[in-house]
Amino acid sequence: MQFSSSLLENAVNEFAKLPGIGKKTALRLVLHLLKQDSKEVGNFSEVIAKMRSEIRFCHRCFNVADADICSICSNSIRKQEVICVVESIRDVIAIESTQQFNGTYHILGGVISPLDGIGPDQLTIDALIARVKKEATEEIIFALNPNIQGDTTIYYIQKKLELSSIRITTIARGIAFGGELEYADEMTLARSLQNRLPVENYVTSR
Amino acid sequence: MQFSSSLLENAVNEFAKLPGIGKKTALRLVLHLLKQDSKEVGNFSEVIAKMRSEIRFCHRCFNVADADICSICSNSIRKQEVICVVESIRDVIAIESTQQFNGTYHILGGVISPLDGIGPDQLTIDALIARVKKEATEEIIFALNPNIQGDTTIYYIQKKLELSSIRITTIARGIAFGGELEYADEMTLARSLQNRLPVENYVTSR
Repeated sequence: MQFSSSLLENAVNEFAKLPGIGKKTALRLVLHLLKQDSKEVGNFSEVIAKMRSEIRFCHRCFNVADADICSICSNSIRKQEVICVVESIRDVIAIESTQQFNGTYHILGGVISPLDGIGPDQLTIDALIARVKKEATEEIIFALNPNIQGDTTIYYIQKKLELSSIRITTIARGIAFGGELEYADEMTLARSLQNRLPVENYVTSR
Repeated sequence: MQFSSSLLENAVNEFAKLPGIGKKTALRLVLHLLKQDSKEVGNFSEVIAKMRSEIRFCHRCFNVADADICSICSNSIRKQEVICVVESIRDVIAIESTQQFNGTYHILGGVISPLDGIGPDQLTIDALIARVKKEATEEIIFALNPNIQGDTTIYYIQKKLELSSIRITTIARGIAFGGELEYADEMTLARSLQNRLPVENYVTSR
């Protein structure tokens, strides 16, 4: 791509560094910003810079926060004794969107994956263990992606905890609502048969 | 979407204002930036703000420029007597990428489209007329999108120019290279028949 302005070129190159954004899309975004009011673009740029420099991570659950403790951990209405263990901030947002969970979170920052060079030390597992030992935790819910790495991580943490007094659960795996049995993979179908629910439970849980 | 940090939320909202970027993509981009070095994000933000506040438009052709006159208009190697009339900056970049054009441009900023409320006054047509009258223009090449609005604009400008000494052309319309006759619309096929080329021309022009 040939540009007649280095200012434009630099801006396009910066946008093209973002994941999933190629040169053409970057150009479209930059030309859009060029049409906007100078003040608005200034605001865009300022908000991004401020976000990166001022954002903090909750000391307790490692979620993004505006202070030392995030708004979920400091919310006394939420059940602080229930911890939902997730991989990333994105998962917290997904679960919060369901408005069905009223406990707290713990963000691992990934899952154990030796092939990618990620071991337990790179994750916040030790902090989770320490947190559980310190606090009066009643239940730990694992909400990790259902794959080998997720299962390994659950197994590892469960072994490390060795606390029989705490209820340890994982989110249900099965056929997605609206999905079709015919197209489900064998693993999912097999698990959903193993973990079948009494119909009265199913009806009330809807 | 529920966010535990207003800094994060603001950044996501700013990204989601961009065309073709929804909330989920915006979140993905913001979380990507969050993982980057603070200096790099600062640079991203600075380049965008600088682009918007410092970019200028060429006084002669209305292309984006770093100075009063763009790098194409100030390039003495290019044929300053040939003007390629295009709709937008994006078209300039597309034509420049072919490396087949060695003249200058004139960016209209759109095409005449009464349905969208765009008349000749909103475009840089008067500036083009004035430029052609002032300069020793030899040829005007219209490279507008082949549709009714583009054709109307060509007709309007051509009438306004009333200068028989200047060669006025438009880029060829026909079946795209690699396209199939079977799937071409009638208008395109009819025009490409009308404007058929002698085979020796075709072979040498490749």
